[in-house]
Amino acid sequence: MELTTLLQAIAPADRRAEELAQRRWDSIAKPLGSLGRLEAAVVRIAGMRGTPQVSIRRRALVIMCADNGVVAEGVTQTGQEVTAAVTENFTRGATSVCAMARVAGCDLYPVDIGVAADLGDCPGLIRHKVARGTRNLLWEPAMTRPQAEDALCFGAQLAQELAGQGYELLATGEMGIGNTTTSSAMAAVLLDRPVEEVTGRGAGLSTPGLRRKVEVIRAAIARHRPDPNDPLDVLAKVGGLDIAGLTGVFLGAAAARLPVLVDGFISAVAALAAVRLCPAAADYLLASHISQEPAAAMLLEALGLSPFICADMRLGEGSGAVAAMPLLEMALAVYREMCTFQETEIEAYQPLK
Amino acid sequence: MELTTLLQAIAPADRRAEELAQRRWDSIAKPLGSLGRLEAAVVRIAGMRGTPQVSIRRRALVIMCADNGVVAEGVTQTGQEVTAAVTENFTRGATSVCAMARVAGCDLYPVDIGVAADLGDCPGLIRHKVARGTRNLLWEPAMTRPQAEDALCFGAQLAQELAGQGYELLATGEMGIGNTTTSSAMAAVLLDRPVEEVTGRGAGLSTPGLRRKVEVIRAAIARHRPDPNDPLDVLAKVGGLDIAGLTGVFLGAAAARLPVLVDGFISAVAALAAVRLCPAAADYLLASHISQEPAAAMLLEALGLSPFICADMRLGEGSGAVAAMPLLEMALAVYREMCTFQETEIEAYQPLK
Repeated sequence: MELTTLLQAIAPADRRAEELAQRRWDSIAKPLGSLGRLEAAVVRIAGMRGTPQVSIRRRALVIMCADNGVVAEGVTQTGQEVTAAVTENFTRGATSVCAMARVAGCDLYPVDIGVAADLGDCPGLIRHKVARGTRNLLWEPAMTRPQAEDALCFGAQLAQELAGQGYELLATGEMGIGNTTTSSAMAAVLLDRPVEEVTGRGAGLSTPGLRRKVEVIRAAIARHRPDPNDPLDVLAKVGGLDIAGLTGVFLGAAAARLPVLVDGFISAVAALAAVRLCPAAADYLLASHISQEPAAAMLLEALGLSPFICADMRLGEGSGAVAAMPLLEMALAVYREMCTFQETEIEAYQPLK
Repeated sequence: MELTTLLQAIAPADRRAEELAQRRWDSIAKPLGSLGRLEAAVVRIAGMRGTPQVSIRRRALVIMCADNGVVAEGVTQTGQEVTAAVTENFTRGATSVCAMARVAGCDLYPVDIGVAADLGDCPGLIRHKVARGTRNLLWEPAMTRPQAEDALCFGAQLAQELAGQGYELLATGEMGIGNTTTSSAMAAVLLDRPVEEVTGRGAGLSTPGLRRKVEVIRAAIARHRPDPNDPLDVLAKVGGLDIAGLTGVFLGAAAARLPVLVDGFISAVAALAAVRLCPAAADYLLASHISQEPAAAMLLEALGLSPFICADMRLGEGSGAVAAMPLLEMALAVYREMCTFQETEIEAYQPLK
């Protein structure tokens, strides 16, 4: 699907379904609004799906995996061989988020969207290697515009395929050494904030390492002058293939009227790029947790989202998004199973779509 | 069990087991500390249980149900007949927390510790009615000291019985119209804060209602002068039977070396009373969420606890504590299932207790 067609396929959420869901909540025998943000999330999911009768039983996590040329600048704690190793481990169910997803009842879809190494036999790995990692954004644009668009459109297509397979809730994760550097660069441009305010220690950088990271990002932005009003330009010049892929997942989910959970910092940057490409896509986003990276709160604010989890998590892999799934499921259990006085009306409602 | 014996049975957590659990986390292939507060919670659970090999598979929610004479003063939105109705609904699996507990895999133990009405045939209801509701604390002490001690000791005994039945994690909930009034009164005394700072709208009080609530609490404290250094005196004079029962649950869990989840405002007041009676009991507390009641954050700070969930919940019934269970279970799945380089040492470890 072309980008223009994709963006045109995204419609705002159904306000009537939201209203009916809110009315159902208000009829349930408990203090009004007492499930807080979880209650609001269920209302929003009803709007996304176009019906107050919602389910999130079938859920999938898409994990975009890619390398970043900027690691050559010493902005990370580990080398880029870790990206390939962890990507392989996703397909063996052997990473942290795999263990969490088993508890949360969530299927995993790892994607090689640009890992530098050749990945061997990885059952279940989705292969769409746009490039063997990006270029070093300190010296040249991370990728070409067509490459960014390729990664984005593949992510969107995958989200739509998952919708076609009956998934009812998507979550977003990533793996790519160096991707807090690209995310901070994109956040600085998209939020128009000083680099040092939106740059953190990633997986555990030292203070000199953090200083170097800020310098590299500043220099890259000065050199390439990405256009903040052109998210694809920002993605191509200072972003990464994982972020571009996730931007596509957010847009594809929105086009398929599917709720999609934002994870932490990197995922939130991709979500902001998606919303800048198509403001209506914001209607399909759900926050999950507030990560420890300094820009996380600014990004959620820019997206108009409130998190459910405040556990100082910063693991990546989509772990925060998966962690939010049981919370939403519990809220939905209350929403569905509690007695109301308006069953009939809600049963009789016909989706507008 | 007498109160003195109970308090003597509480020992601090096992620091060696905590150390071994921390070492295991540090050996897992993921960024150090990247599960944040969830990781710290698992370490603390190891300390409570006296072994790094922990499980929270079997979990129970104790819901203390009781009425408060102070409702006669118009400090609540609903009448006290609601306490009995909801208590009965717990035994039919028909309240909000029942639906959530089914998702979280948690058994429910509702307790009539002082409901004003006679409860009919309620299968599974634990009956220990200390009084048919408390007295109106505006005019007389809510209960006698022996009544407070009776409720407390019963809660402790129940927690210890649940430990004996093999439960590995307890959670605390309550139902009692008027219990944000008693909780605010206790919080004002125990935290030494002005009443208006620790008093909120409860289940949805109007502004004049809130003003009245503050006045009633102020007058009650002025009349009875509860001794902040004597938690049982505070419980008896301005507390409630539900809070006293929960204070006992916290102490009983600590005596049984069982982790126990604090829920929201009311539960946190009971936890603070428990810690004031026995500081070592703090080692066995886990926070869950940060409720919307104004004193919630002050209480968690006084307890030295950080919440995992920030969803503006204020439903009561133990809903926040139950919501935290899948988060802990996911963290524990990572802790148990991820590869480490130190399996042998941890396997070989013998609990110190």
